[in-house]
Amino acid sequence: MANPGDKVKVIKKEGSEEGIFVKDDKDTVFLKLGSGYNVGIDKKKITKVEVLEKGKGLNIKHAKETKFKKGLPTISILHTGGTIASKVDYRTGAVIASFDPEDLVGMFPELNEIANIDSELVANMWSDDLRFKHFEVIAKAIEKHVKKGVDGVIIGIGTDNLAVAAAALSFAVEETPIPIILVGAQRSSDRGSSDAAMNLVCAAEFIVKSDFAGVAICMHYYTSDEICSILPACKTKKLHSSRRDAFKAVNDIPIAKINYKTKKIELIKKINYKKEKRKLVLKPKFEEKVGLIKVHVNMFPEQFEFFKGYKGLIIEGTGLGHTPGHVSDENNKIHEKFFPAIKKVIDSGCLIVMTSNTLFGRVNMNVYNKGVDLQNLGVIPGEDMIAETALVKLAWLLGNYSKEDAKDLIRENIKGEINERIEPDEFLE
Amino acid sequence: MANPGDKVKVIKKEGSEEGIFVKDDKDTVFLKLGSGYNVGIDKKKITKVEVLEKGKGLNIKHAKETKFKKGLPTISILHTGGTIASKVDYRTGAVIASFDPEDLVGMFPELNEIANIDSELVANMWSDDLRFKHFEVIAKAIEKHVKKGVDGVIIGIGTDNLAVAAAALSFAVEETPIPIILVGAQRSSDRGSSDAAMNLVCAAEFIVKSDFAGVAICMHYYTSDEICSILPACKTKKLHSSRRDAFKAVNDIPIAKINYKTKKIELIKKINYKKEKRKLVLKPKFEEKVGLIKVHVNMFPEQFEFFKGYKGLIIEGTGLGHTPGHVSDENNKIHEKFFPAIKKVIDSGCLIVMTSNTLFGRVNMNVYNKGVDLQNLGVIPGEDMIAETALVKLAWLLGNYSKEDAKDLIRENIKGEINERIEPDEFLE
Repeated sequence: MANPGDKVKVIKKEGSEEGIFVKDDKDTVFLKLGSGYNVGIDKKKITKVEVLEKGKGLNIKHAKETKFKKGLPTISILHTGGTIASKVDYRTGAVIASFDPEDLVGMFPELNEIANIDSELVANMWSDDLRFKHFEVIAKAIEKHVKKGVDGVIIGIGTDNLAVAAAALSFAVEETPIPIILVGAQRSSDRGSSDAAMNLVCAAEFIVKSDFAGVAICMHYYTSDEICSILPACKTKKLHSSRRDAFKAVNDIPIAKINYKTKKIELIKKINYKKEKRKLVLKPKFEEKVGLIKVHVNMFPEQFEFFKGYKGLIIEGTGLGHTPGHVSDENNKIHEKFFPAIKKVIDSGCLIVMTSNTLFGRVNMNVYNKGVDLQNLGVIPGEDMIAETALVKLAWLLGNYSKEDAKDLIRENIKGEINERIEPDEFLE
Repeated sequence: MANPGDKVKVIKKEGSEEGIFVKDDKDTVFLKLGSGYNVGIDKKKITKVEVLEKGKGLNIKHAKETKFKKGLPTISILHTGGTIASKVDYRTGAVIASFDPEDLVGMFPELNEIANIDSELVANMWSDDLRFKHFEVIAKAIEKHVKKGVDGVIIGIGTDNLAVAAAALSFAVEETPIPIILVGAQRSSDRGSSDAAMNLVCAAEFIVKSDFAGVAICMHYYTSDEICSILPACKTKKLHSSRRDAFKAVNDIPIAKINYKTKKIELIKKINYKKEKRKLVLKPKFEEKVGLIKVHVNMFPEQFEFFKGYKGLIIEGTGLGHTPGHVSDENNKIHEKFFPAIKKVIDSGCLIVMTSNTLFGRVNMNVYNKGVDLQNLGVIPGEDMIAETALVKLAWLLGNYSKEDAKDLIRENIKGEINERIEPDEFLE
């Protein structure tokens, strides 16, 4: 069998694949293809693995030392996981994230031209595994570095929940004197097509050159390595599973664009929350028992009833904010079963907020009787909030305010999560 | 108080609203605004309702008679509900959908220039309330009209589940000699901005002028009344709660564009399934117990376990197809709780299929260990299917095939629901 790092040709019963051998387990051989993607190949389908070229292992560059350059601002890079600043060691297949400043500057030497870099490995986890309590951990790490007096914080994080984390942190870090920019990578740093360096560098440029304070996201604007966008923390969604320009503003526009070559910053939105000597204020508590249910065709009332006893529930409804109302039996007799189920959940003390599965646009629960009926049950319209943003906002409100206050505040814009009743031009065009 | 149809000014404690009085109930006054939108105003906030102009009620035009024009093809319009061919009677606030051919031609006289119109009111329901069995009812209505020898069928349906119904019908109607086009309206026919007429007329033009057979969708391409698109039944999603161009192809491109003024049809995709003298074949059974769960941050394993005993489950996972893996306790001790929960569901006999909450792109469960682990549990990658399409496909497969066959067929393209591993150019650009 091949060793990790070897260039191999995997001959299958049908066809073959060439790539770098990463590792194998009982059932599967993992290859890194020329495209940079990993692929897993079922051993049952493999007839032979040919070694084309022995590997040399991975050459990890460390900066000899990071020179403190007087006059440059300081940026702290906090790593929480994901592919943004990790390398695969082909000898072991393991992801390396030792993550001291020397490593970072070794990987991304451009950073040291922009700022003095401090860094900390806060966590190393899949962003899917993020729980509310981790937002508290990250918020406290931010606090530590703000107290050190840095000029900005970059948070490296897995892309799957990057936008959700940005929304959560913009609530948990209620006031900040400096910018906090979340950055991820859709392709890992050891790949030619990696977006890690450009996303990091553009985030650093934006921190250093703009007036912006608060939480935002920095990711590729197009697929090409030309422009990054700074995206609003509460109004962004990962809208593609693999493309580098997966992150898009929803019911909003980007805050700024950064040209990677010229380093020019084009402000698109007026910056309301600017850098100034204010105190950092954390409000990092979230209520644990808050769920999300997506409405679908042919669902059963029991799917709603499950959430009895939860403190909060986001419904991702259809269109302007609807759920099914009826179940009909085999004789086409209609039973009004959904509204009683939803009422049971509300009566158990749960705040229910409606969002839309159309993603773009806002709910309007006054257009059809169904929306009015749902409101009469106690369901609260979630305006134009992304379902995931509504989820972390509701959990944050219930963690820090009374239920009555949460009920009012959920419909009020606190951190840019609700926009005025204005149709942004940018909708899939 | 005002009467329905009156032009009124509602004076609130703060500000006022002008519009047509539609109706009121115990708590709410409903107005139709100048924009055409309905709005509900809380009576507690109203100080006075001033009648500005008495209403005349609604003038519903009936065609005197529909003349059968020799040489013209025949199109059957089947109505199932929604705003596409309904009018609000301002005297009662009720939606009128008497829906005989005279009504339809009275409302949309252009239709009679394109084809002789037959029609049937199959149902009159919210599309949110659609259940699998209703797809069978609609399929049988299609069969009835195909047997009459019509040249095409248009189905009027509510927009909330229009795209889901199109996917379901493209499986339920396995073979068809003629085109079946689903049409909806984002704004009702009594509004100046209604998209009903143009969507219907463009659907009729496409039926008459193209070679296409099979199921598709006809809706506005832009917001302007210029171009409609014919969209692929299994690859379309309603992506805006209110805009007329809400329907977009996802991981695919439109089949054709129709210019409303010139009536020219521009084919964008090669038509593989053409009109010919084949028999209509229905396969309208769907397995009832199939659910959908959307992964979110801070979820609990019990949310998965709920689906024990279901025959099928779609997971709308993150990114390339992931779920959370761990719950950690107050001492940060990690418990592997999600995978055992998912395994329990699979062990109960449930087929689980993974889709992505990024909407665009495809799942790839070989890139990260987590995806491989989920596959080892038995979770099946759903390729680039929209979650809702995967749901109706899985229910249809389980209704018509053995579990083993369903397991294989879910990953194979049957009706255009899975595209080759090609990145379409059209992604939010």
